[in-house]
Amino acid sequence: MRKRVRELGLNIGNMKTGPANQITDVTGVKVGHVTLKHEMDLDTVVRTGVTAVLPHEGNPFFEKVPAASFVLNGYGKTTGLVQVEELGVLESPIMLTSTFHVGDIWQGTLDYMMEQAPEIGDTTSSLNIVVGECNDSYLHTVRANAIQKHHAGEAINMASKKVEEGAVGAGCGMMCYGYKGGIGTSSRVTEMENFTIGVLVLSNFGKRNELQLVRYQAPGFDESEVPDGSIMIIVATDAPMTSRQLKRLARRATFGLARTGSHIHNGSGDIVIAFSNGFTVSHQFSGAYVEPRNMIRDDHPLMNQLFQGAIEATEEAILNSLTMAETTSGRKGRKGEELPYHLFQLQ
Amino acid sequence: MRKRVRELGLNIGNMKTGPANQITDVTGVKVGHVTLKHEMDLDTVVRTGVTAVLPHEGNPFFEKVPAASFVLNGYGKTTGLVQVEELGVLESPIMLTSTFHVGDIWQGTLDYMMEQAPEIGDTTSSLNIVVGECNDSYLHTVRANAIQKHHAGEAINMASKKVEEGAVGAGCGMMCYGYKGGIGTSSRVTEMENFTIGVLVLSNFGKRNELQLVRYQAPGFDESEVPDGSIMIIVATDAPMTSRQLKRLARRATFGLARTGSHIHNGSGDIVIAFSNGFTVSHQFSGAYVEPRNMIRDDHPLMNQLFQGAIEATEEAILNSLTMAETTSGRKGRKGEELPYHLFQLQ
Amino acid sequence: MRKRVRELGLNIGNMKTGPANQITDVTGVKVGHVTLKHEMDLDTVVRTGVTAVLPHEGNPFFEKVPAASFVLNGYGKTTGLVQVEELGVLESPIMLTSTFHVGDIWQGTLDYMMEQAPEIGDTTSSLNIVVGECNDSYLHTVRANAIQKHHAGEAINMASKKVEEGAVGAGCGMMCYGYKGGIGTSSRVTEMENFTIGVLVLSNFGKRNELQLVRYQAPGFDESEVPDGSIMIIVATDAPMTSRQLKRLARRATFGLARTGSHIHNGSGDIVIAFSNGFTVSHQFSGAYVEPRNMIRDDHPLMNQLFQGAIEATEEAILNSLTMAETTSGRKGRKGEELPYHLFQLQ
Amino acid sequence: MRKRVRELGLNIGNMKTGPANQITDVTGVKVGHVTLKHEMDLDTVVRTGVTAVLPHEGNPFFEKVPAASFVLNGYGKTTGLVQVEELGVLESPIMLTSTFHVGDIWQGTLDYMMEQAPEIGDTTSSLNIVVGECNDSYLHTVRANAIQKHHAGEAINMASKKVEEGAVGAGCGMMCYGYKGGIGTSSRVTEMENFTIGVLVLSNFGKRNELQLVRYQAPGFDESEVPDGSIMIIVATDAPMTSRQLKRLARRATFGLARTGSHIHNGSGDIVIAFSNGFTVSHQFSGAYVEPRNMIRDDHPLMNQLFQGAIEATEEAILNSLTMAETTSGRKGRKGEELPYHLFQLQ
Repeated sequence: MRKRVRELGLNIGNMKTGPANQITDVTGVKVGHVTLKHEMDLDTVVRTGVTAVLPHEGNPFFEKVPAASFVLNGYGKTTGLVQVEELGVLESPIMLTSTFHVGDIWQGTLDYMMEQAPEIGDTTSSLNIVVGECNDSYLHTVRANAIQKHHAGEAINMASKKVEEGAVGAGCGMMCYGYKGGIGTSSRVTEMENFTIGVLVLSNFGKRNELQLVRYQAPGFDESEVPDGSIMIIVATDAPMTSRQLKRLARRATFGLARTGSHIHNGSGDIVIAFSNGFTVSHQFSGAYVEPRNMIRDDHPLMNQLFQGAIEATEEAILNSLTMAETTSGRKGRKGEELPYHLFQLQ
Repeated sequence: MRKRVRELGLNIGNMKTGPANQITDVTGVKVGHVTLKHEMDLDTVVRTGVTAVLPHEGNPFFEKVPAASFVLNGYGKTTGLVQVEELGVLESPIMLTSTFHVGDIWQGTLDYMMEQAPEIGDTTSSLNIVVGECNDSYLHTVRANAIQKHHAGEAINMASKKVEEGAVGAGCGMMCYGYKGGIGTSSRVTEMENFTIGVLVLSNFGKRNELQLVRYQAPGFDESEVPDGSIMIIVATDAPMTSRQLKRLARRATFGLARTGSHIHNGSGDIVIAFSNGFTVSHQFSGAYVEPRNMIRDDHPLMNQLFQGAIEATEEAILNSLTMAETTSGRKGRKGEELPYHLFQLQ
Repeated sequence: MRKRVRELGLNIGNMKTGPANQITDVTGVKVGHVTLKHEMDLDTVVRTGVTAVLPHEGNPFFEKVPAASFVLNGYGKTTGLVQVEELGVLESPIMLTSTFHVGDIWQGTLDYMMEQAPEIGDTTSSLNIVVGECNDSYLHTVRANAIQKHHAGEAINMASKKVEEGAVGAGCGMMCYGYKGGIGTSSRVTEMENFTIGVLVLSNFGKRNELQLVRYQAPGFDESEVPDGSIMIIVATDAPMTSRQLKRLARRATFGLARTGSHIHNGSGDIVIAFSNGFTVSHQFSGAYVEPRNMIRDDHPLMNQLFQGAIEATEEAILNSLTMAETTSGRKGRKGEELPYHLFQLQ
Repeated sequence: MRKRVRELGLNIGNMKTGPANQITDVTGVKVGHVTLKHEMDLDTVVRTGVTAVLPHEGNPFFEKVPAASFVLNGYGKTTGLVQVEELGVLESPIMLTSTFHVGDIWQGTLDYMMEQAPEIGDTTSSLNIVVGECNDSYLHTVRANAIQKHHAGEAINMASKKVEEGAVGAGCGMMCYGYKGGIGTSSRVTEMENFTIGVLVLSNFGKRNELQLVRYQAPGFDESEVPDGSIMIIVATDAPMTSRQLKRLARRATFGLARTGSHIHNGSGDIVIAFSNGFTVSHQFSGAYVEPRNMIRDDHPLMNQLFQGAIEATEEAILNSLTMAETTSGRKGRKGEELPYHLFQLQ
């Protein structure tokens, strides 16, 4: 039974966590996983999956949420960021999967959403779908076509408040700092106004000697075949923030990544997507040209607490993705070894 | 038999065109269309397709080309721009299709490219696929699922030097300035050094009263159901330009769009992708850490000629997409009427 | 007595202008010029100045306005855009001047604002000053140091609702399309809700054969010594728009520039700054962490009218800068010839 | 006598430093300071200055260097970044000073450069000047107008290979993590090819409880009057990198900042400027439209070493700015206390 980093005695930062220390501490946010893990033959080992992050209880097409992204290193295939940047809203679940099935999950998510909303494609309505990815080809046989379109809807339907971590969902085949990585999550609550910032990461980057969690370094292995990797960082909050402010929040999240040790390798697609469900933007409108909003002031001290929360929760989510992941075998006889945290003192 | 705008006696700008006045005047560039046009029943009318633009004779995964994009209005679903921005190279064909099948064409293009290149997905190599789109739902029944993954490879295999224009390929169901639009192309040659700038557009934007080609306005129709539309502009050149310079070129292309009359409506995804095949960047490298390049000076007068060529060729390509498109019937008894250029003097 | 383009019988676009067809039709906006025009000796000819655009009747430090910029071509020295991008507000007048005195006018504006507001520099308050520029060195002896810091405050104090156009203020020495250019302005009113979009330009770009206003081309002169030039475009509105939306508006303004004929030469710094005084953001805050705002919906038809207004007003402002400018002599015996509009039919 | 962090026994990262562990380990780079430190009366205490970073031995106007910037948090007044972004070159020294004298130093630098280069302002040549700043108003009386234009040229003329650190030059009045901060520098050398990455920072940000250098926290003081602060990070290298690659390097430098503890407060202008003198771009050109360049491959392992070097050198430069700064009194009886590193174990 693997443990979360906080259970191992290591507290990150000094802000209070949410009740479950998960992204789902943000009211309405839910997470679903489809994990695909089986062997077809020695050369065809399936270690992949899909993870869906739902921004609120409703349908994000009908009730869009303010959102923004920050691309720290753009060696990645994430879709949908162009429209998020222009309009400042997210209107689909955020889907995470293997680099090699972005198209299938994009299409499967659209198919699923079209079932829910007859407008899409019939009137002039289109839908902007956000799919993020990391490259799981170290352990997973990507050419096996294990991921199908229908897995998108299944991951969405699996969504709940309880977030499994480690080698699950899109994280099934991912490697982080030379150990088994994958899904991790954490949250923080601001002292002022009790807003929650939740983070979920899909971790798949780094070399063993970069990890700053521990002084101890487990004996290395040949890391040359591990992709430079990537990380997807999803930041959710219930604080009412505009897309401009969420871009600011997204940039802060990378500092949590920095503190775990990353050198942001050339081949690492490091992308943050941040959204707020503190208010929503309806697809239909009443005819009024203006709509009232409550906006946080940039210079209110609360903003700095939100920034700090994004940093702390990102750092802890990454560490959780490591400490919660179990050793996972893969193709070509490879092994994604779990972080042997029992061997050393964390600090 | 529809005519190109130049055959109608209207010359755009004052630079010389290439021999065919097409994007394929740029050596090595080829274009392929798959046109899907049939009726399944009264409510299910297929008017869609796929267009592939190949940057050179070889495989762009093995020989990448410098590239950049400019998003004039980001209400669009184009994939792959994040990595193009980071690395400054294009490594796939540029695929154009319906808004509602970006995922299928993304995945189909990856499947096709994986057949050509065993490295992809086996070693650490991933592939960044660029798919652009416009919303053809005015004439086309998008829920019919007419486009399949295999159409991606077929469009690539159809690629040739001869570019069909109008209601073909991805342009089959598109509307432009309230008339039938779709694919158009044009080219220019610089006086200095004889470099070619070629443009291909997928046009699907604008209202009749915006079009500045003609003083005459044909009697209107109910344009309220026509989507705000979009335009994809592909700019190719054989001039050796860096990604930074290609971004500058991409911005200029929008001025050709401006001159046709567009007001850049809220819902119009107006995106330019520019590439050069004046040099390539090999996927494999020899081990040397530096590679020699010849770079154009930004302040050489040639640069201004390239800029002007992008503007002129874009304007003419858009007009060609109108004058070459034939009347096309669509779903719900709708009709995409061809521009009635015989009724009036162009100017 | 020079005339505005509309007095010459040429109407641009089809929207209604504001009462004065000036940027100051936007309630509260005022414009002030300091024109410096004298000869010290044959080699030292002063043809320069300063123009101030005030966003509203109050002090923009205490009541900031939402703002954004769009850099079409960044060969320019405009200051302050970094902070406008981050915080989405403008907190100083927009100052325009010669390329070679951006520092003096920056410092002079700060000095002036510090007099008005004791907080600046004493508590933690800093001030972000926006200074735009064009290069007037064709007619003006920039090494004469004609512009001094105090001219900043003088231009601000001169601000009024009546906007002089042509060879005045920062426009005194500017050249446009090979003719005398400088300051021009225009405005539009939306049919829905009667919002005003006002534009002021400082025009200093282009060659004679690019100008699309006229078929007739006056006999040329040696344009090789005219700088590639630049244009500053200031867009004001009273519609309540966020910084994200104002960036969208700013991009549209460039289409007005496109329609006059520009090829966006390499050396032309083409920069748009857009602001709204439809709401303001107070420097002091009440302690509440959120503030209510009324935000325009992006998909309301009104937005497209605002976009169109920015395009039309920019085109007309540029043409006004040409038709209102009078022949101006300059250093080295040069002459900035006024556009000889009496010689030809405008169209 | 204050010590550098490495002399205190703390080694940052695992790459080798350059011979002096300074930005000037990059061949040709020089740094000059003008420190202004005196009292006029109790209310008028001068604690400010100017720092100049010269990119190579020659005149950067005649031999421009590839450059890029990354704005982590744009609450800052740095000038010149628009043109650096467009053209990818730096053509002036990088000047650092007080927030309240950016204009004077901009103008003074132009005056100095015009003396060196008669072309500037006479032919069509303009000059893009880069001035960065932090807000030193906690200790310094900014309204005293202590900084004058001539200090720009003086700082340039003072430039040498030996870099003073701490409360010198632009760093004279700066505060970092609630202690006295200012100028710090460090460097790294790549194992492959022996390229150097040098960093110089002007540090003026953070609260005491953010600093991660030490477990021990000195008794606090009232930090509410200390500005949210800012940091300017200058990264130099002799590796031949394009502007696109230098932007990538600039982003990495922020990870060094992250590791020292920063939460990137709202009011902190955190800006990185990176340049290479591995090749230059001549102002004059021979007439040839292309020029040969040697470009580093993004996917060569050397690139990751450069990235790591930027991270490590930035972290160490920030720490040096703290450990080298001496206690400095200021206006209103304030004191910028030096980091009491003798009281505790660094780790």
